[in-house]
This record gives sequence, structure tokens and C-alpha cells, in this order.
Amino acid sequence: MAKVKPRVFRGLRDLLPEQMAARQWLIDTIRGVYERYGFVPLGTPAIEYLDVLSGSAGAEAQQSIFHVRNPEKRRDSDEEALGLRFDLTVPLARVISQYRDLPRPFRRYQVASVWRADKPDRGRFREFTQFDLDSVGVSSEVADVEIIAAMCDTLTALKVGSYRVRFSSRKILNLLLKYAEIPDQFEVSIQEEDGIGRPVTRTETRSSSDVFRVLDKLDKIGPDKVRLELTIGYTDKSGDRIPGLGLTNDQVDRIEKFLAIQGDGREDVLGQLREVFGPVPEAEEEIDVLAGMSRQLAKLGYEEDRAVIDLSIARGLAYYTGPVFEAILVDAPQFGSVFGGGRYDELVTRFIGERIPATGASIGVDRLLAALLELNRIPTRKSTAQVLVTALDSTMTDDYLELTFELRRAGISAELFLGKKGIGKQMKYADQQEIPLALMYGSDERDKGIVTLKNLMHGKTRSGEIEKREEWIRERPGQIEAPRGELVDAVRKMLSDVEQSHG
Amino acid sequence: MAKVKPRVFRGLRDLLPEQMAARQWLIDTIRGVYERYGFVPLGTPAIEYLDVLSGSAGAEAQQSIFHVRNPEKRRDSDEEALGLRFDLTVPLARVISQYRDLPRPFRRYQVASVWRADKPDRGRFREFTQFDLDSVGVSSEVADVEIIAAMCDTLTALKVGSYRVRFSSRKILNLLLKYAEIPDQFEVSIQEEDGIGRPVTRTETRSSSDVFRVLDKLDKIGPDKVRLELTIGYTDKSGDRIPGLGLTNDQVDRIEKFLAIQGDGREDVLGQLREVFGPVPEAEEEIDVLAGMSRQLAKLGYEEDRAVIDLSIARGLAYYTGPVFEAILVDAPQFGSVFGGGRYDELVTRFIGERIPATGASIGVDRLLAALLELNRIPTRKSTAQVLVTALDSTMTDDYLELTFELRRAGISAELFLGKKGIGKQMKYADQQEIPLALMYGSDERDKGIVTLKNLMHGKTRSGEIEKREEWIRERPGQIEAPRGELVDAVRKMLSDVEQSHG
Repeated sequence: MAKVKPRVFRGLRDLLPEQMAARQWLIDTIRGVYERYGFVPLGTPAIEYLDVLSGSAGAEAQQSIFHVRNPEKRRDSDEEALGLRFDLTVPLARVISQYRDLPRPFRRYQVASVWRADKPDRGRFREFTQFDLDSVGVSSEVADVEIIAAMCDTLTALKVGSYRVRFSSRKILNLLLKYAEIPDQFEVSIQEEDGIGRPVTRTETRSSSDVFRVLDKLDKIGPDKVRLELTIGYTDKSGDRIPGLGLTNDQVDRIEKFLAIQGDGREDVLGQLREVFGPVPEAEEEIDVLAGMSRQLAKLGYEEDRAVIDLSIARGLAYYTGPVFEAILVDAPQFGSVFGGGRYDELVTRFIGERIPATGASIGVDRLLAALLELNRIPTRKSTAQVLVTALDSTMTDDYLELTFELRRAGISAELFLGKKGIGKQMKYADQQEIPLALMYGSDERDKGIVTLKNLMHGKTRSGEIEKREEWIRERPGQIEAPRGELVDAVRKMLSDVEQSHG
Repeated sequence: MAKVKPRVFRGLRDLLPEQMAARQWLIDTIRGVYERYGFVPLGTPAIEYLDVLSGSAGAEAQQSIFHVRNPEKRRDSDEEALGLRFDLTVPLARVISQYRDLPRPFRRYQVASVWRADKPDRGRFREFTQFDLDSVGVSSEVADVEIIAAMCDTLTALKVGSYRVRFSSRKILNLLLKYAEIPDQFEVSIQEEDGIGRPVTRTETRSSSDVFRVLDKLDKIGPDKVRLELTIGYTDKSGDRIPGLGLTNDQVDRIEKFLAIQGDGREDVLGQLREVFGPVPEAEEEIDVLAGMSRQLAKLGYEEDRAVIDLSIARGLAYYTGPVFEAILVDAPQFGSVFGGGRYDELVTRFIGERIPATGASIGVDRLLAALLELNRIPTRKSTAQVLVTALDSTMTDDYLELTFELRRAGISAELFLGKKGIGKQMKYADQQEIPLALMYGSDERDKGIVTLKNLMHGKTRSGEIEKREEWIRERPGQIEAPRGELVDAVRKMLSDVEQSHG
């Protein structure tokens, strides 16, 4: 029989026990926070109808849907075409639309895999985990405040170190358009050459979202080129002509004035914003909304050190309709936004033709996990076992089973070494698996009515201090004998010693 | 814009919060048991290469694989063909073969969705969850004993009521073949008619697994027809000729003698088996293996009331190579085996051409959950919130936020009602969501420096005892006032009262 090569598709990966345990800890911790907020869990299938999936996605997103063949059909009819979900928001919108008697507000969390057929890259996978939190059916900003607070509490619970949740509102950008007198749609003249090199002028329509698209390049191309692209255009290094959007210098000055707002705290930012947007109608009202959120956050103890108003984050997020939020880790800014979201009141429109207010945020579990592992801020353990019961004497298997189960029944994770190997290899196994305690029990111990316990972490911290191997063996550091009848107590005591010295 | 109909593909389903919470409880409980045994978690991608998936699957299983289109390729080349995993054993085998430096023994658990494109049916879904537990690299039956013990401990932890883990060994069936003198392969004469009605005789090859296939029909067609099919064949009701396997009456007598073994306990079954198989070579040795497992289980407290030897369960399981096990719920036998497995030492042969011993068991989470819900043996809750903070006065939102977060920070799950509804509808919401406590706080309470707490479960149990609505309102059963400063303590006390009367 020809052998099959064991392998996975590019962009997919296995999560070996150490990674999986860290991920499980992360997910359990987040779930704990969300349940304390009274959010409820939801599960949806991985496979959805393509029309359900793709209606809300742009052309780019549609290309990244993995198609699934319904084996009942000879060929995919349009109606039966299936795909793997690429996010958890679309399934939420479908559920809200499909089950009309769900409670309102519907406050749910969902943690699940999603799939995107994008080109795989370092840290970018084709199957990854999202952890979403959304309040559906609530138009009040109190729901947004709660999301921001949940983001802070989650990052605190995950012990990520210093973090910033930055928030603003999509509506502030609408004010910017009014302030800079940029209409929703406008004409722009494009200068080109025709086939034989003669200059020609075409007119095209541009929209306000093109302005945001250009502003989004600020970090990448710098303020000078952004100004050129917003106005007359420029020719880049490769000689390509980048057309301008035809804004006036006055319009761009206003945009820059807005982007230059850098306050000393939320109140200050809003104060400056009030000044800049002074003459704009509705500005007062929209800024008051952000001010109210800021006041409520302060009352709840979410101060400037972790929740900041950042007017730049609303750029390019055409999808959102109100407050927007994102979180970065201060010690790992290179990972970008690890947690983000906002208010999107068009959630279910394409299913039921009706607006239902919604707000929420999503964690990219894989990215956050990668960041925490890099920062060494996540407890990693190769094994779940706290004790390895070594098997020294093959005639004493029944005794080893009894010892192992006695520990398990006391709530102590215990593994009985099941292979046929010598004590040295068993100890090496415990060491590799980072199991902190080994239990030894031979006929000698049985006759004396004792067990021998060895603190394997002890050797690790002390080995540097002890010069001679012989001395180490003679002293047997971290090794004790305990009466057989006091097994559980002795193990508990040693485990608490380990925790204190390595916690 | 044409509206999209919100719907899921046949055989798929959503898990709404109440179902999802029950499932989460089930999974967390199982995980707790497995981690106490020192098993470690593993994660693998949902999408695998088709050749990885299908090599070990029979033709039937291959047909039930959902194919996934790799969007990088215009057409699926054989090499790039992808599918969704249909179990967790194949991915385990791939991982064992791919990562050669994994610790041995490798004792892992995995809980994940699997997909099968089978015809959907009541209780049979196309996406379902498996929870697998396996020890790889251990040939000793101690590993099998540990799996049986873990099955018992899991079912006990899940509070399923009475259960039976039945076990036997595939090797006992090999002894049966020897005892009944049935060779691995044998010739059978088939009597047929040719095109013009003349009788003709053909010879075909049959194997011992055909014998097991017929025995497997015992429950369905009864002992008489099984005997006929094992010997001379018969004509069924529709007039179809069912050919016989050509065994002699003496051979069938021996099979029946084996199947008739019904002992009073494990020792008795094995004693009878020793008698029946007396003259068979190697019988003593194989029966000793089961006896050793039985003795170890007894030492660990797994007695006849939950772990029984059942010689009938090994039928039809050609896949297994040693001990086999399955569990049924005594109060819900109609759900069949909810948990099953065995030893299968051919796990990785097709990947690396080498035998690695392995044993394990798998839980069909959906089936077990359905059984427990039917038996009313699983805690179900629509909400994760223990307290609903009602919002009576829209000018007091900041106060409501403070109350809510004070509870959350004390570890009490609290939901602030976020909709714009009157107190009656808010109470109805709490009732529908099965939130046990409501907190009321208006300007009246604020002036008095108190909060009002209402035990919503109290009304439920007591309403039958109280005749008049007026009396009920006057007495306000289950409603108390507590000083604002003692909020957390008062809520904790009321929650513990709720638990005591409804626990």
C-alpha cells in the first residue's frame, strides 16, 4: 500500500498541546468576563449558504470564501451553493433575522473558527478563531460603553500588561466632511494621455469614502503625499500617476486641523474638537454623545490610562454607523489592533429590510495569543498533569493504579506512566512535559509504608547552585518521604511549595 | 435590493443560548475529568487533504466527506483536493505521523466539530461534535483500564444516572473463530438460476468478517434467520434469495453456545468463557487479559454496577484489535451507545508503515446531550446573568451602570436592562430569561439609600400557595430592601436562598 504523506494545507496548522492549553486558558478567561456581563453563548454551523455569506461581503471578501460541495447535488445549483463562514457577524445577522422571537436585547458571545482563503502569510492563517461579543436591539450608547468596559476588563483579566482601548465615532467623521465641506459625492477631473501621447481629461465620480481611504494611508505614505493625493495627485517612484481627488487646499487644511487634535485626556480632546467643529451643525450633539460615554466610563473607573479618545481610528470604517473602538497592547504595538469593533445598525437590513441597532467587538484570538506568547504573559504548560506516578516495578501495576486514582479523586491531576521504560526515561518524560512532581513507589517503599515524592522544579532552580553531581544526589534536593496514608496531603503541600517558588 | 432568506442547509442547525450553555457545561465537565487524568488538549484544522482523510475510510465514509474547493486552483488537482474532517481519529493519526518528536505515550483529548454529508435524519446532523480521548504508544492493557475508568468517571461527573460501560475484546472473537473452526477465508457455493431458469452453482470466497456481519443482525432478524444465513441461506418475504455462508450445524451450535454466555458478574462470565473455550489454544492467555482488567477495575472501585463484561459488543468491529468498550444510559437505552471505543493498533500504518499501539474512546456530544436533556439531567439556563438590574428612570443611567459593575466586580453575573421598556416588560424579560434576581432602584430608593431586590424564583414556587393576587402584591413575597452599601452581600444571600430552594 502506498503511504500517504502526513501534512496539512498551506495556511492551516495544528495546535499542539502547549499551544492548545494556552488558547484554552485565553478562551476560558474571556468567557468568564463575558458571562459576568450576562452575555449568552451562541453556536452556528460552520457551513452557510453562499448567498447568506456573501451578500454583505465586498468583492474581496467574496473571493476569500472557501466553497463547500454539497454532495447531494451533481453540480452546484445557485440555490444550493455552500461555503465556510468567514466571520461571526454574518451568522449573527442570519440568526437575528431567522428567529424573530429571540429576546431583545439579544446580548450574545460566540467563539468559533472562521475560514478565509487568503494568501497565507506569517501570522495569517486560513482557519482562525474569532471571539465576538455583541448587543443587538439597543440603540443607547450605554451598550457601547458596556462593550468598551468589557474590552478593558477582558484585557485586564488576560494580564496583558498595559493596553489602550481607543474609541471615537463614525459620526465624528461625518462632521469632518461637513466641516471640510466635502459632499458625499463629487466629480474629479483626471488628466491622462491618449494612445499617442496627447493629454486628455476625463471626469469621474468620487465619494467621501475615497477621502477616508486616502487618509488611511497616512502611516504608510506620510502627510505630504496624502495632501497631494487629496488635491492634485502625484507621480510615484515607479513613474505611475496617482490621480488626486481635487480637494482645495482649504479643505485639506481643515482635515489636517482635525487630524492634529492631540489632547491631554478625553475631556481635552473633546474640548478641542468642539472648538474646531464649532460652526458645524449637529456637532454639539454628536460630541455630547462621546462626552457622555467618557463620563460614564470615568464613573466606572475606566480612566485615561486605558480608555482614550482617538479621533484617527474611525478612518476607513465605512461599515460602522456610530461609536468605534479598538485595542492595542502598549508593549506589543507591532501586533496592531487585537480587539476591535463598533456600532453597526445595518446588521440585518439585507435579510429583513429593517434596521436593528447593534454594537459589538471581536477578538482575533490567534493574533492576541501570538502577542501574549511573545510577551511571555500567558501561562503555558505542556501537560495538564501535576503529578507523574512513575512505574518502577512491573509487578506493582495495581498499586500504581491505586495511587494514581487516589490523587485524581482528590482533585489532583495525575498521570500514571504507561510506557515500558526505565526510571531515568520516566523522569526525563516528566521533565519534558513540565510535570512538577514525580511519585516513586517500589517494594522498598511498600515495605516501609511510605511514598517518595520528588519536586522536579526544585532541581531546576537549584541546579545552578550545586556544583557537584554527587553532592546533588546525596542531598536529594526536593525529595521527601511521606507515609503512604498521607499521600494526598503530602502531594498538596509539595504542589503549593512549587507554586510559591514558581508562581 | 432583493432580500436574502435567512436559513441553514438541511442537516445543519444553530445552537441557541440555552442549548449552547448546556453543551458548554457538558464539555467543561468532560474536560475537567480528562485533565484530572493528565490528558492534554490537541487542536487540528477542520480542512484536511482528501488523501489524508479518505485512506482509512470505507467507500461509504468517503461518500460522506464534504469537499472543499481550494480557491487558489482553477480546478481541483488530485494533490490539492481538500475536505472537511469526518472524525477526530484520522487527524490524530496524521499528527502522530507528522510530529515524530511528540512525547510517548501521547495521551490527548480533542473536542471539535466533524462533518458528514449523510442524509440528515431526526437527531442525525451533518455537523456534530465529537469528544475523543486516546492513549497512543502504549500496548499495556493498563491504558485500556484507564479509558474504561475515565468513561465511568465522566458519566458520573455528568450525573447521567445509572449507566453501564460494557467491555470485551476483539481477540475473544478471534478465539470464537478458532473454537467454531471457521477459517479466516473460506469458499461458499451459491445456488442460482441462469438466464433461462436452469440451476447453476457458483463458488465465492467469504471471510470471518462476513460471519460477524451476519451475527450483527441478531437483534434485527432473530436467531432462526441468523442460523439459516450462517448455514444454507433462506428466501425472504419479498422472494429474494439470501445465500448462506455454508457453516455446519456444529459450527453454528458453537457460536450459539458462545453467545448464550450470560454470567452473574464479570468473574462468572469469564469462568463460563473458560469452560466453553477450554480446548482452544491461547484462550487461557486472552481470557487472563480480560480477567486482569476486571481485577484492576475492581481494585479501583469500578464494580459490576457500572462496568460489565458483555461478549456481544465485539461484533462487527473489524477496526479494533484488542479490548473494546461502549457505554449506554440505563434510563435511556433508546439512545444506544453514547460513548465507545477500543484498542486499534493500526492507527498510523498507512502514513508511516509502522504499527503504533493506541486505545481510546469517543463521545458523541450531540447524542449524549440529547439523551441528558430528555432525561432532564442537565442544568439548563437561558441566561448567564444572576441579576437583572432594571432601568426605571432614564435620568439614572449612570447609577444603574455603577450598580451593575459593582456586582460584576464582586464576581456576580449581572445584566443591565438596555432596552427602552417599562418595568413590566423588563420583569417579563427577566422571567423569560430565567434570571433569578431583579434589582430595582429609583429616585425613591436613592433618597432612602437602599436597593430593592426581588427573588423572581420565589414567585414561581409560591404562586400556587397564594390565592388572591391582592394578597400576593401586599405581601411582596421574595422582595426585600437592603442598604445601598450592602448591595453585594444582600445579593449573595438572596442567590444562596434561591439555590437552596431550587438547587
